[in-house]
Amino acid sequence: MDMLYENILRNIRRFVLMPPEQEEAFCLLLSIKKIKKKEFLLREGDVCTDEYFVNKGCLREYFVDQKGTEHNLYFAIEDWWISDLYSRTQMAPTYCNIVALEDSELIQVNHLALEKFMEEVPALERFFRMSYQQSLVNQHLRNLQMLSMTAEERYIYFRERYPKVANRIPQKHIATFLGLTPEFFNTVHAKVMRSNRKGYILSNFKM
Amino acid sequence: MDMLYENILRNIRRFVLMPPEQEEAFCLLLSIKKIKKKEFLLREGDVCTDEYFVNKGCLREYFVDQKGTEHNLYFAIEDWWISDLYSRTQMAPTYCNIVALEDSELIQVNHLALEKFMEEVPALERFFRMSYQQSLVNQHLRNLQMLSMTAEERYIYFRERYPKVANRIPQKHIATFLGLTPEFFNTVHAKVMRSNRKGYILSNFKM
Repeated sequence: MDMLYENILRNIRRFVLMPPEQEEAFCLLLSIKKIKKKEFLLREGDVCTDEYFVNKGCLREYFVDQKGTEHNLYFAIEDWWISDLYSRTQMAPTYCNIVALEDSELIQVNHLALEKFMEEVPALERFFRMSYQQSLVNQHLRNLQMLSMTAEERYIYFRERYPKVANRIPQKHIATFLGLTPEFFNTVHAKVMRSNRKGYILSNFKM
Repeated sequence: MDMLYENILRNIRRFVLMPPEQEEAFCLLLSIKKIKKKEFLLREGDVCTDEYFVNKGCLREYFVDQKGTEHNLYFAIEDWWISDLYSRTQMAPTYCNIVALEDSELIQVNHLALEKFMEEVPALERFFRMSYQQSLVNQHLRNLQMLSMTAEERYIYFRERYPKVANRIPQKHIATFLGLTPEFFNTVHAKVMRSNRKGYILSNFKM
């Protein structure tokens, strides 16, 4: 069992150490979910009942506005977590969609089981407290980027900060994540590829 | 001592119950900080070493872009928490400013003391895990609003969701928080006041 869930345990051990018996008890809550490319993990209107960890593959979360335009909110590849925290926390229908960009393998844990486990095992509570704190920091820095960087700078920053994601996800999806139209994105992308201005942005926002 | 810190204890008890001896131990970490209207709690370039709870008063957090334009990121009134989580977590200089909009009284807790206390008292770790989870949910809903609502709808939503804040904070600050120019904001505000379209937005985003 442990080998099956080795990746998620290693991810948790970045922040906290659970004794082996707690790790084993946690693994009893987990299961594997496989989804094919283009298959949905969550559709608008569903209630999100689980938290997911990406064992293999790549997913995107997006929102569709009243005009039918898709806005990408989040990507997840191996070793990242994904769910709709709003829907899962409030047990309310989600406003978003999560779809697989590649055949993917997820480790799944039920929301209520996770909440109960955290009450009993403070180390896991601590892990999620630290993860959420880091997510809030990332969200804050992203907000500042949107306010202070040009489109070109945001794209360079994204490529430097998330090179694995940038190389794997279709460019049209990166465009809407960065708040750009595909046409404008193409211009920026071409310009960045020509100038190869690697490394000059990261110093602005340390993470 | 308990009466001095009654508000912060009541805020924490919304999510978790600490036994009296833990509440008392927590209060030993706290101190009162008073600042005058227009005084800064944090200035760009400072390292944020504390978390603050607003006992009395009103503050705003803002970011100044390269052109010198202020962007409001956050407001806090009585019973809200405020700090720069990025700066405090990474012990790095902040990109933001926090200034008092009124004479204010804060309850202050040192970042490192708080981290150490959470290791020893899982209930407080749980409180912050739940608070951060709720903050991420709020941030998510705000992102969706920015993508899907008109300026008028965002203003109505803000007034309904945060009536105490909306009535206390100068309108120019609400404008930049909502991503509007002051001129455009004035038009929206006048229109909303005329039509008095109270109550029609809240059903869109339950919180």
